[in-house]
Amino acid sequence: MNYILKDENSIYYECGYSCDNAIYISLGNDRFFITDGRYTIDAKQSIKNATVVTHRDIYQKAVDIINATKVKKIMFDPKEWSVYGFDKISSKIKAKLKPSIDFSHHKRVIKSDKEIELIKKAVKLGERAFKNLAQSIREDGFGMDEYALTYKAKSILADFGRYDLSFEPIVAIDENAAKPHATPTKKVLKKHNLLLVDAGLKYKRYCSDRTRTVSADKYMTFDTHQKFKSKKIQKAYDTVLKAHDKAISKARSGMKAKKIDALARDVIEKAGFGEFFVHSTGHGVGLDIHEMPYISSKNDMIIEDGMVYTIEPGIYIPDEFGIRIEDMVVMDNGKAVVL
Amino acid sequence: MNYILKDENSIYYECGYSCDNAIYISLGNDRFFITDGRYTIDAKQSIKNATVVTHRDIYQKAVDIINATKVKKIMFDPKEWSVYGFDKISSKIKAKLKPSIDFSHHKRVIKSDKEIELIKKAVKLGERAFKNLAQSIREDGFGMDEYALTYKAKSILADFGRYDLSFEPIVAIDENAAKPHATPTKKVLKKHNLLLVDAGLKYKRYCSDRTRTVSADKYMTFDTHQKFKSKKIQKAYDTVLKAHDKAISKARSGMKAKKIDALARDVIEKAGFGEFFVHSTGHGVGLDIHEMPYISSKNDMIIEDGMVYTIEPGIYIPDEFGIRIEDMVVMDNGKAVVL
Repeated sequence: MNYILKDENSIYYECGYSCDNAIYISLGNDRFFITDGRYTIDAKQSIKNATVVTHRDIYQKAVDIINATKVKKIMFDPKEWSVYGFDKISSKIKAKLKPSIDFSHHKRVIKSDKEIELIKKAVKLGERAFKNLAQSIREDGFGMDEYALTYKAKSILADFGRYDLSFEPIVAIDENAAKPHATPTKKVLKKHNLLLVDAGLKYKRYCSDRTRTVSADKYMTFDTHQKFKSKKIQKAYDTVLKAHDKAISKARSGMKAKKIDALARDVIEKAGFGEFFVHSTGHGVGLDIHEMPYISSKNDMIIEDGMVYTIEPGIYIPDEFGIRIEDMVVMDNGKAVVL
Repeated sequence: MNYILKDENSIYYECGYSCDNAIYISLGNDRFFITDGRYTIDAKQSIKNATVVTHRDIYQKAVDIINATKVKKIMFDPKEWSVYGFDKISSKIKAKLKPSIDFSHHKRVIKSDKEIELIKKAVKLGERAFKNLAQSIREDGFGMDEYALTYKAKSILADFGRYDLSFEPIVAIDENAAKPHATPTKKVLKKHNLLLVDAGLKYKRYCSDRTRTVSADKYMTFDTHQKFKSKKIQKAYDTVLKAHDKAISKARSGMKAKKIDALARDVIEKAGFGEFFVHSTGHGVGLDIHEMPYISSKNDMIIEDGMVYTIEPGIYIPDEFGIRIEDMVVMDNGKAVVL
């Protein structure tokens, strides 16, 4: 199989190294990592299974390498390539570039034991960060606005600069949590507010992802046992938690992804909140924070052992509140094991 | 002029808001910001000069908006669009998409007074971070390896989570600094090592960028007066500083970019280090860390008042050492003013 890659994570998966100006080509048994002179030394030190080639114009070098062979078809992912980069190569080679959407993601969907270890480590670091964040909020978080709380979450998640974040954390209070991708406002945290935190970090490039929704008071923790003053919020919370638990306990290897989505969705629909669960139940996590398998109502992909994904049902009542509970699982011996 | 944008910074420049799933379309006097439901509330709160439209499939919505008009030509930048996204639109619209490389960057090359204020603030915060980093290294940096020093630099640059970084900082000792884009190694900082730090942060999305190369000892600072024990290093350092100072003092609005590159390059060539200055003299800085104007030996762009760019000559002796000194300037009243 001949293929050409541009995405940093796709390239990293192939050869254990990537940088912001690289092309990776696999032609028969030959593999080439093309970059510019800034990265030559590092690339050569890190890459053992491909020839490192450096050139000022990586596109031209790719053209030269391809045209030096008799290869007729080369696979590419249209999502990885800019129109600009694609044209620079496709207009100058004799071979045909054949689109194959997400083919690197398909290769990556079953995680190796080593990858699962790295993801576990990222998840454990994330879990510890949530504990530290809870303590920090108990100490001085009340009276802070969402901007300051987001800053606090970022600092603690990153362990003050040691780790990259998987994404910009979401820290949302009460009605702001009704936006699944809330950005901070000047709303200030007070006792008994609802507080939603969605955050993760990277360990050796592998991502973690976790969401908790809690009743904020001086004893608050991010565990899943939460008591809210509002009965409506409590009912929604209990429903989300039940949906979360059910999807995790009933998910099996061999099921379609949409069946796992339905496990969670049915609980929420039966409780009368169906219209307020406005997104999919989960998504795969690995080198990318969002990758296959997508646990959505339309996805027929068969879930298999070694897949890693989130279970994150939610209920969002506009202008009132939002609740989401998210954990990552790995399929192991046919079942979903929480990481 | 009709155009369609996909890049986050290009879109932010038009309407003061962007997110990771958006398309911006300008058709005659009508402007549309298309995103999905996760961002509706935030987008509507932030965007005053365009109609916010939300749809699950932003590409399909763009098609519908374009096909509802009689527009015949729409400009796009092939660097902003994936082959995937481009095909989803171009295959379904009656209008022709006309490529125009970097057209948003051309619009952004002259900064407004407000933009210059934001960039100045980013630069001042970066300058303060370098001071704090020097103090921190004096206190406990000796004996740390490049990984730990990079972590220290990131924490201090980000003010422990408050600011995003412009890019992954470079912290390199002695021969590792010979790689213009060095990544960390286990090399440990000792007294009288050469230490190169290249780092910047973002203030309200605008970037800063700064490099200093210093002789590390217990009195070290990141100012440009440096004394090295090695005569060869000192000669190279003095040459780079002279090239840096000359380019800044002699740069004028109306010059071609390549003339400014030559101001620095001539100094280095005359000192006999020409072959070791392996990159361009500088690059523009704004919403993107690398943007126009590129201060390179091949660029005929005329430098004008309001342009902001780096001056960063360097000398890199493989396996021995590397030196780079970088500041940002704004062209003001015909001259380059250090920010």
